Amino acid sequence: MLQETAKAAWEYGRKFLMQGKVADYIPELGKANPVYLGLCIKTPDGKTIEYGDVEERFSMQSISKVVALATALQHLGFDTVFSHVMMEPSGDAFNSILKLDTASNRPFNPMINAGAIEIVNLLAPTFKFEQLLDFTRAICMDDDITLNEAVYHSEYNTGDRNRAIGYLLKSKEVLEGDVLQTVDLYFKLCSMNVTARSLAGLGLILANGGVDPRNGVRLLSAQTVRTVKTLMLTCGCYDGSGEFAVRVGLPAKSGVGGGIMSCVEGQMGIGTYGPALDEKGNSIGGKNTLEYFSRAMHLHIFDSERE
Amino acid sequence: MLQETAKAAWEYGRKFLMQGKVADYIPELGKANPVYLGLCIKTPDGKTIEYGDVEERFSMQSISKVVALATALQHLGFDTVFSHVMMEPSGDAFNSILKLDTASNRPFNPMINAGAIEIVNLLAPTFKFEQLLDFTRAICMDDDITLNEAVYHSEYNTGDRNRAIGYLLKSKEVLEGDVLQTVDLYFKLCSMNVTARSLAGLGLILANGGVDPRNGVRLLSAQTVRTVKTLMLTCGCYDGSGEFAVRVGLPAKSGVGGGIMSCVEGQMGIGTYGPALDEKGNSIGGKNTLEYFSRAMHLHIFDSERE
Amino acid sequence: MLQETAKAAWEYGRKFLMQGKVADYIPELGKANPVYLGLCIKTPDGKTIEYGDVEERFSMQSISKVVALATALQHLGFDTVFSHVMMEPSGDAFNSILKLDTASNRPFNPMINAGAIEIVNLLAPTFKFEQLLDFTRAICMDDDITLNEAVYHSEYNTGDRNRAIGYLLKSKEVLEGDVLQTVDLYFKLCSMNVTARSLAGLGLILANGGVDPRNGVRLLSAQTVRTVKTLMLTCGCYDGSGEFAVRVGLPAKSGVGGGIMSCVEGQMGIGTYGPALDEKGNSIGGKNTLEYFSRAMHLHIFDSERE
Amino acid sequence: MLQETAKAAWEYGRKFLMQGKVADYIPELGKANPVYLGLCIKTPDGKTIEYGDVEERFSMQSISKVVALATALQHLGFDTVFSHVMMEPSGDAFNSILKLDTASNRPFNPMINAGAIEIVNLLAPTFKFEQLLDFTRAICMDDDITLNEAVYHSEYNTGDRNRAIGYLLKSKEVLEGDVLQTVDLYFKLCSMNVTARSLAGLGLILANGGVDPRNGVRLLSAQTVRTVKTLMLTCGCYDGSGEFAVRVGLPAKSGVGGGIMSCVEGQMGIGTYGPALDEKGNSIGGKNTLEYFSRAMHLHIFDSERE
Repeated sequence: MLQETAKAAWEYGRKFLMQGKVADYIPELGKANPVYLGLCIKTPDGKTIEYGDVEERFSMQSISKVVALATALQHLGFDTVFSHVMMEPSGDAFNSILKLDTASNRPFNPMINAGAIEIVNLLAPTFKFEQLLDFTRAICMDDDITLNEAVYHSEYNTGDRNRAIGYLLKSKEVLEGDVLQTVDLYFKLCSMNVTARSLAGLGLILANGGVDPRNGVRLLSAQTVRTVKTLMLTCGCYDGSGEFAVRVGLPAKSGVGGGIMSCVEGQMGIGTYGPALDEKGNSIGGKNTLEYFSRAMHLHIFDSERE
Repeated sequence: MLQETAKAAWEYGRKFLMQGKVADYIPELGKANPVYLGLCIKTPDGKTIEYGDVEERFSMQSISKVVALATALQHLGFDTVFSHVMMEPSGDAFNSILKLDTASNRPFNPMINAGAIEIVNLLAPTFKFEQLLDFTRAICMDDDITLNEAVYHSEYNTGDRNRAIGYLLKSKEVLEGDVLQTVDLYFKLCSMNVTARSLAGLGLILANGGVDPRNGVRLLSAQTVRTVKTLMLTCGCYDGSGEFAVRVGLPAKSGVGGGIMSCVEGQMGIGTYGPALDEKGNSIGGKNTLEYFSRAMHLHIFDSERE
Repeated sequence: MLQETAKAAWEYGRKFLMQGKVADYIPELGKANPVYLGLCIKTPDGKTIEYGDVEERFSMQSISKVVALATALQHLGFDTVFSHVMMEPSGDAFNSILKLDTASNRPFNPMINAGAIEIVNLLAPTFKFEQLLDFTRAICMDDDITLNEAVYHSEYNTGDRNRAIGYLLKSKEVLEGDVLQTVDLYFKLCSMNVTARSLAGLGLILANGGVDPRNGVRLLSAQTVRTVKTLMLTCGCYDGSGEFAVRVGLPAKSGVGGGIMSCVEGQMGIGTYGPALDEKGNSIGGKNTLEYFSRAMHLHIFDSERE
Repeated sequence: MLQETAKAAWEYGRKFLMQGKVADYIPELGKANPVYLGLCIKTPDGKTIEYGDVEERFSMQSISKVVALATALQHLGFDTVFSHVMMEPSGDAFNSILKLDTASNRPFNPMINAGAIEIVNLLAPTFKFEQLLDFTRAICMDDDITLNEAVYHSEYNTGDRNRAIGYLLKSKEVLEGDVLQTVDLYFKLCSMNVTARSLAGLGLILANGGVDPRNGVRLLSAQTVRTVKTLMLTCGCYDGSGEFAVRVGLPAKSGVGGGIMSCVEGQMGIGTYGPALDEKGNSIGGKNTLEYFSRAMHLHIFDSERE
């Protein structure tokens, strides 16, 4: 039944592709094909269910914020991380500077650009990009993840708003060290090339409490995983996070490259790829696929028929 | 073990009372005794576990937003309600006007004052206060809930910011009809007098998917309950909602009267009363009691040891 | 030469009428004829120079803020007035609530709605509308000014944003007494029916230091006049005030009814009427007439050829 | 009488020094001596009237925004300059990013940091710092103006908020070319070392319509001077500009280094130096000296006894 529902969900999601629009504020992203839609589901017992364009590579974009946050929690600890970033949804766009100028020195949460840049700044003294890339490969169960050089250069050339955020954080003495190097590392993380399968892999690790089910190796602590999933639920889909939580009811992180990574406690990791985005920047095909799937399978965290 | 853990949680919560402060922006609330702390847990099989000041009556305040939202969802339907109010956490204080002036005509969510006033406006043509009071009694399993006249008058006399919100909504043609009557009804709902037990009762109905476990009567649909609990999780504790979700991981709604109402899927309803508040307006004793209890019992929605 | 230049300025101003748009947020204002343009100039020696539609009556709207401020300064004094309202340009729209919610309890200046409502609130205990109307007639040298009932009712019916501002000021304990009565008086002042001639009369009194040149009677103190003209210069044309000051360089107050009232130190009062507005809410014909006239006659306060 | 009044004004201004505070957000500025107060007045006929610390050198800071704006107007023209920067007072602090993030791509005016950085960006392709320094010497009638290296390094080391503004402008495609070089040039201009005398010289050129009265050489066009003085009046004293215009009624530009530069049409240039600042960042001694002097001499632009 999981298989049939997954297929029906994917078919449902495809109906919305025409209403979406590929991101174009980073020129390289504008080249993506809006008719793509891929869905991959991975379960702890090793099964994979897939439909559509699951082998297409695309840049992780904001989904890398999950990798950065998980790494920081793992290596620096909960208290250190959250003395630099808050845990509150902001209600503003992902690249907003508003609240940094008016409401708080600390970024509102690690899922908006300001917060993720601060997290990357915390990682920078300890990790080189290559180490973070290696960890991303492990946590996504995908050794073929590489840096998408074209996207990285496109990010680099259009990343002045992120540089502004970096310097504003530095002026508030929240960010330390070199702003441009920090933002550069942030761009590289955004430009890691994944597939829907890699995202399902990452979702599976999170669903499984931080342990790789293939070999029992713990990659993330239970506390790290719990924290990451909560922030995905409250802040993972930009300023559409609240509606996504109501309609889908699963932790999820989207990226403007077209990916959504999600998971169901103990049951499965889910990855979708569909570069046509809604007006909030979330994959319109992926979002609707997930809503259908969650509803049909009773996966919403507060579905009273959930198993 | 539930009993011992509940007691330990309550004792833990009491340690924080001295760090809190009773609300005083509504003069009548300022009379509350900051040393009170009550914890009540109700389970579907009819058990009640209680510690401390569970018989003290206090005004529901923002917790009545849950009642109003549930009633509106039940009688007007999901689509109508959310064509008037959004579902997004705002990142601003509960009584902020900022985003109404700059970001959106619709209030960001039903858990901030602007959203709740709009919800009450949707209910006003159909329901008199007495009917809503009756429904509150049913949904809280407490026939003794009454209007606290003193608090109501205090609200009425200091409610000009809420009247401003009402008129602003009216100017945007989101709110219809009489502003002052709408706000008056809102004040009455905030002034309903409950106990920690009533809140545990309300939590139990939500935990039990909308069905009163005493008699099997469905009071709220599964969709209403799911929606309400999701919005409690993302927006239920003012601008401390994100941190509450990370640390406690349960849907909860707090009120500046000192109450917190929470629930655990299928397992229990929880009510706390402690009028000493933290700087965000959440009961400091209640919050810490819940954090301890959730952690010790592995109740966090994303706790990997959760049953 | 004054006469020829005035005529040329008026002809120049008429060329812009097609680019403007009559205000329609108050329905009654939407009935105005956008092809009207009137210019009236009055000098201390009793001369009047007029072109176009100078006998058309229209509502004063925001120009009444000058009357209210002058009355308050005259009767309550500089220090009392400016303990309730600041003197700073706000950079926001005339009806913005933003800064009241975020930056200051006191309205930024008496020329935005919030500030004018506060000024009217200061006047309310002492003055009935009829008294303020009488004073307006005197200060405008026009005994035929009356309340435009149709506009007043239209204002009343669409004035919820101003009521929101009033209640917000009340909630901050800046405004005292009855909000709705205060706002009602504010609506009546906005609805006083003037002509370009009345505005030239008001401008003449201000140009002449507060003294009626016909009879030598002092209507306003020198300090009141100096203060009013400074605030007209810095804040008199909504969020186009800065550009107006650079381009025209004369104190001026505009109203969305289509009037602009201006003056030249010791030399003349100027009134224009043209209900077609630019995107900031200033009469597009009046504004361009004044710019041409000021430039040709070297009237800019910082024109180095000014006499 | 000019001389006696000037002396009395200076003595009056000194009484306020204790209420002020030296700027310390740029460490080097914190070393200034708060008891200094100097007043210098220069008239077109070559007279100089001076009291107090008129030979002390201090950094121009925001007063250099006048030099930058004047240079840009002179060389690029009114229309080019104001297609990049608006002319509106912002109502926000000098270093605010708020309106850039929410209200407009163009900075609100050339007297706030964002506007001045944009002006400097317009100048950067044409002028080297040394050329701008030479022009500053000419326009201030002071050949001894040099770069204060210590202040420049202090600015450089603490200028991250200005870098953030620069990158934000770049991301909006308002600023072109290299952000860090632009901001660096801006820091150098802020760090030019002047005296109260130099500021009186600059004020004299502006009072005299752009012509050096010593030799009749025109340094700035009439339009440039008119525009600069208007913007000084509406925006020259940070978010205290409105009150300064009401109380003093003269175009003025202040800097956090302690200087105020002002002028009276055709009559005189005025420079003051007093590093103790009020809470808005304006020299408290200078401001009060100017208020006394303007009132006693009837210099306010709308003083009805003004000559």
